[in-house]
Amino acid sequence: MEKIHVDLGAHAYDIEIEAGLLPTVGGKVAALLPKARKAAIVSDTNVAPLYAAQLQASLEAAGLAVVQVVIEAGEQSKNMTVLSQVLEQLATAGLTRTDVLLTLGGGVVGDLGGFAAASYMRGIAFVQVPTSLLAQIDSSVGGKVAVDLAAGKNLAGAFYQPKAVFIDTNLLRTLSTRFLHDGLAEAIKYGCIKDAALFDKIAGFADDAELLANIDSVVATCCAIKARIVEEDEFDTGLRMLLNFGHTLGHAVEQHFGYSGFTHGEGVAIGMYQLTARTEAMGLTTVGTAARIKAVLEKYNLPLAAGVEKKELLSTMARDKKKNGSSITIIILKALGEGVLQKLDWQQVPEYLG
Amino acid sequence: MEKIHVDLGAHAYDIEIEAGLLPTVGGKVAALLPKARKAAIVSDTNVAPLYAAQLQASLEAAGLAVVQVVIEAGEQSKNMTVLSQVLEQLATAGLTRTDVLLTLGGGVVGDLGGFAAASYMRGIAFVQVPTSLLAQIDSSVGGKVAVDLAAGKNLAGAFYQPKAVFIDTNLLRTLSTRFLHDGLAEAIKYGCIKDAALFDKIAGFADDAELLANIDSVVATCCAIKARIVEEDEFDTGLRMLLNFGHTLGHAVEQHFGYSGFTHGEGVAIGMYQLTARTEAMGLTTVGTAARIKAVLEKYNLPLAAGVEKKELLSTMARDKKKNGSSITIIILKALGEGVLQKLDWQQVPEYLG
Repeated sequence: MEKIHVDLGAHAYDIEIEAGLLPTVGGKVAALLPKARKAAIVSDTNVAPLYAAQLQASLEAAGLAVVQVVIEAGEQSKNMTVLSQVLEQLATAGLTRTDVLLTLGGGVVGDLGGFAAASYMRGIAFVQVPTSLLAQIDSSVGGKVAVDLAAGKNLAGAFYQPKAVFIDTNLLRTLSTRFLHDGLAEAIKYGCIKDAALFDKIAGFADDAELLANIDSVVATCCAIKARIVEEDEFDTGLRMLLNFGHTLGHAVEQHFGYSGFTHGEGVAIGMYQLTARTEAMGLTTVGTAARIKAVLEKYNLPLAAGVEKKELLSTMARDKKKNGSSITIIILKALGEGVLQKLDWQQVPEYLG
Repeated sequence: MEKIHVDLGAHAYDIEIEAGLLPTVGGKVAALLPKARKAAIVSDTNVAPLYAAQLQASLEAAGLAVVQVVIEAGEQSKNMTVLSQVLEQLATAGLTRTDVLLTLGGGVVGDLGGFAAASYMRGIAFVQVPTSLLAQIDSSVGGKVAVDLAAGKNLAGAFYQPKAVFIDTNLLRTLSTRFLHDGLAEAIKYGCIKDAALFDKIAGFADDAELLANIDSVVATCCAIKARIVEEDEFDTGLRMLLNFGHTLGHAVEQHFGYSGFTHGEGVAIGMYQLTARTEAMGLTTVGTAARIKAVLEKYNLPLAAGVEKKELLSTMARDKKKNGSSITIIILKALGEGVLQKLDWQQVPEYLG
């Protein structure tokens, strides 16, 4: 068992990581939240059939009454209408302020379910059981919960920390190869910005089997990196931007294809490589870094380019919410393991990202 | 000018109270939030025609670009659908995380607009300009923002403190007599639970004209009482329940008539009187208290009874979200100015409220 403590004062919590953790979650939740009588499991149509019954049995064995709230799988569910429906179901089930909501799923379930927990009766206890690699290393740490608006992604939400995160890495076995690699792109990102040893470790695995055999420690290292950054910047006003390495271009790629062409991790892969190739050519990044990123991305079948005119991506980026007036902050690598914030005037953006 | 400081650590803010304050709000907001470039005024179809232009001019004079978001007046607007529409309008107007949302209106506008401010981009600065007496002394202090669900009132929301509250008591001059008295019921409540001198002051005014001539100090006293209670219990886990004096029965009355028979304050008036008549008869309250409450309520044309079978109200109460398992906490008066929490088993409720 790996345990990461996220030290956020009154909002502190632990992340527990272990293969085979799922059946023990009920007992842990009951011990953590002794006043809870009811538990809602928010999951989606992909994950619920695989794992919800097991989680429910574990919660019931610990004395909790369980209601399942299952949303349609996919980003298109992450909206105010589905949020409303989830909230109504919590009310219908009679959850009170001392009860608990667990999210069982990937990023969409964690983001929407977390926002439901933050909002229901102005906030009830929230426990995350992330089931995708991306959710295990990214969305489950940091307390950012949200839904999309018509005007853009994640535009309505809250900073709301879970009471605990339980990561059962066995659940990754049902993940498709594409979505395993989708999450791995974020793990590679953590290596790029903060931990060259993690980067080398991922680059050194012979194949997916070796990766999966070592996934507990990869997940734990990523969660610890993100936890240290979030501790410094809970409300995302500075340092936390470091986590956006590859994301400005990546989001533009995702958005350009209507979130159906490339996965989030694939977008980030493209962003990391394209930007680093450029900053290396500009003399801002140690020579050879882009090649090392290229090699690891190719090894895991992650894309290097989006096959679309940069010009089109730039106009997509101009609408990005991270743009703040006339400047934008992007993350560049000085070397592998050393990401830094770089504030750009909007007219410099094409030089870096165009 | 009366100024009440609400000391909530990192969430501290000031309430400024003065007749004629409205035209100065823009300058104050710009000084408080120097990074803000855009301001959204959330108001409703009753209040916007009266005061939004004046507030907008004041903000524009201070250099802010202003967008008005006007919702249909009335409790029926306080839902997730209208919240969604407001959020989309903020996005369309291009508000960023450093911009500001002002609510200009009564409780519905403050609650819904405040939840929009809490949620938009996970929280932007929020300034309240309450226009009804009820909002000035109650909803504008305490950081409780929310919308209703089909399943019940205020079931989705947040604890989200404003950066400032600006109370212009001149705005009360356009309030109907019924809604002036609606708010006054809450002022009487503050007297009942915490401040016999405030109670006597309100009881001693000759008429509404004398009340209005002294309204600044009444508003300031009420805000200060609520501020001291909220400071002790920001997240409503104990002491803050004191503010619910008269509310358990009051909510049931409001709900029974579908929120169209009695106003909130009228419901509270009924609740305060009926409960105190009962606790006085039980020997829990100083003799003569109910008569004093009755006299002040009658003076301001506030109701003493709902004209409905208590049995029906009890079944409505049973569904109240404040019911927590087998017990419920109500507030009773030991004497005027001295409210105390009393935990009741559910079977004792008819004795007190039935």
